[in-house]
Amino acid sequence: MLELYHTGLTSCSVKVRLCLREKGVPYVSRYVSLRKFEHHTPEYLALNPNGLIPTLVHDGKPIYESNVINEYVDEAFEGPALRPADALGRARMRIWSKFADEIALSAFLKPIWSSRFAPVVQAVAKEDLEKVLARVPLQERRDAWRTLSGGTFTDAELAACREKMKFIVERMERDLQRQPWLAGETFSLADINMVPWLVRLKEFAPDFMAPANAPETADWFQRTLARPASRDAFSPSDETPEYAGQGLLYRDLVAA
Amino acid sequence: MLELYHTGLTSCSVKVRLCLREKGVPYVSRYVSLRKFEHHTPEYLALNPNGLIPTLVHDGKPIYESNVINEYVDEAFEGPALRPADALGRARMRIWSKFADEIALSAFLKPIWSSRFAPVVQAVAKEDLEKVLARVPLQERRDAWRTLSGGTFTDAELAACREKMKFIVERMERDLQRQPWLAGETFSLADINMVPWLVRLKEFAPDFMAPANAPETADWFQRTLARPASRDAFSPSDETPEYAGQGLLYRDLVAA
Repeated sequence: MLELYHTGLTSCSVKVRLCLREKGVPYVSRYVSLRKFEHHTPEYLALNPNGLIPTLVHDGKPIYESNVINEYVDEAFEGPALRPADALGRARMRIWSKFADEIALSAFLKPIWSSRFAPVVQAVAKEDLEKVLARVPLQERRDAWRTLSGGTFTDAELAACREKMKFIVERMERDLQRQPWLAGETFSLADINMVPWLVRLKEFAPDFMAPANAPETADWFQRTLARPASRDAFSPSDETPEYAGQGLLYRDLVAA
Repeated sequence: MLELYHTGLTSCSVKVRLCLREKGVPYVSRYVSLRKFEHHTPEYLALNPNGLIPTLVHDGKPIYESNVINEYVDEAFEGPALRPADALGRARMRIWSKFADEIALSAFLKPIWSSRFAPVVQAVAKEDLEKVLARVPLQERRDAWRTLSGGTFTDAELAACREKMKFIVERMERDLQRQPWLAGETFSLADINMVPWLVRLKEFAPDFMAPANAPETADWFQRTLARPASRDAFSPSDETPEYAGQGLLYRDLVAA
């Protein structure tokens, strides 16, 4: 029995949904509504003490952190290999997965929260805020809540995010100039773990990844989107009941 | 041919030195002096574009990010297995490795830089600062340089770090109450990747890990230190020419 607690098209959820589709592994979809704070319930926190989404539950055992989930899926199930066959390739894949988690997530977290999650935060009555915050396990997330509750991130913070977005593309160009996929000769979890962030880039700074500015990245993005799993993962379905406002859809991505 | 570029007793370097000792893999030590900014040279940046230490070079191929290096070492060399035998155990190990990289590193980076690295930063003449910063690839590190160059981190920032230090111990207690090692029944990279941060905790907030406050963590720390590889990795040697001021030594840890 394999269950995925996810939020549809948000970056870390779509990353795991994409991996499961590439691997061809069926699962039971458990949608978690951020707007209803379902990720802060005691039941969810018992599965994932960080209160983040997604969480995979395999035969009752929870696994969390999207990159960790994806490597687990590749190790635990039959299907096409999503990790390079050699240890060096796997190390290169993990360097990219870490980059996705740290650099890419931090480039987009504040812009995404500003544009998409702020209304949810600001709908919480002032007198309820501390009660909500008391259920948020991670300090950085509590800090973001407090900031958005009282206003917005500063221009300097958002400018620093844009600088990181540029850095992401520079790094991708660097590696893709010498190999077709991020970890080497074969499509891997490195590509799966990065693609949701490039979808965000398409939304927040499309010029950075235009073919004229980033030819290798633009080409990689087209090749990645052309995979059947991408079409499926980024299209609205019964797994994405709150897709409006969660980000670009497949039809927007291929039209652009 | 296996070469490790490292800085001796700094957290991420000692983590890999510890792993190589547990695995029993010999290597050529390449000491990199932070004080001389040897990690910002074009030669080093060609190995590790992030300008961070350590970097492992295996038959000319560089691998960086200490957690990635440690998993590579376990995959690529003979010796005792440092990863659980099953996919679920490996996932749990990677959740802890990620925690070490994100939560633990961010709990200690500012305190360590304040107390240990500030004199190095402040010795850079004001007119040279931008030149030095131009060679630092990661935004967060440039920001820390700028802050320390002009003064110190705020009390609120350092208080947030102490809150994270407490959080680390809470999480360790939670897992160690039900199993002897962080990833389960066997000693693994999860333990290796966390121990340098507990050494920092011993330095910055020893009360948090006192047996009365954190019995499981205190016991785990003693068991980890009792391993021969720990004694060797945390003791001064010809691999630690600048050990004075880099952190607690093995003799301090066992005496405490």
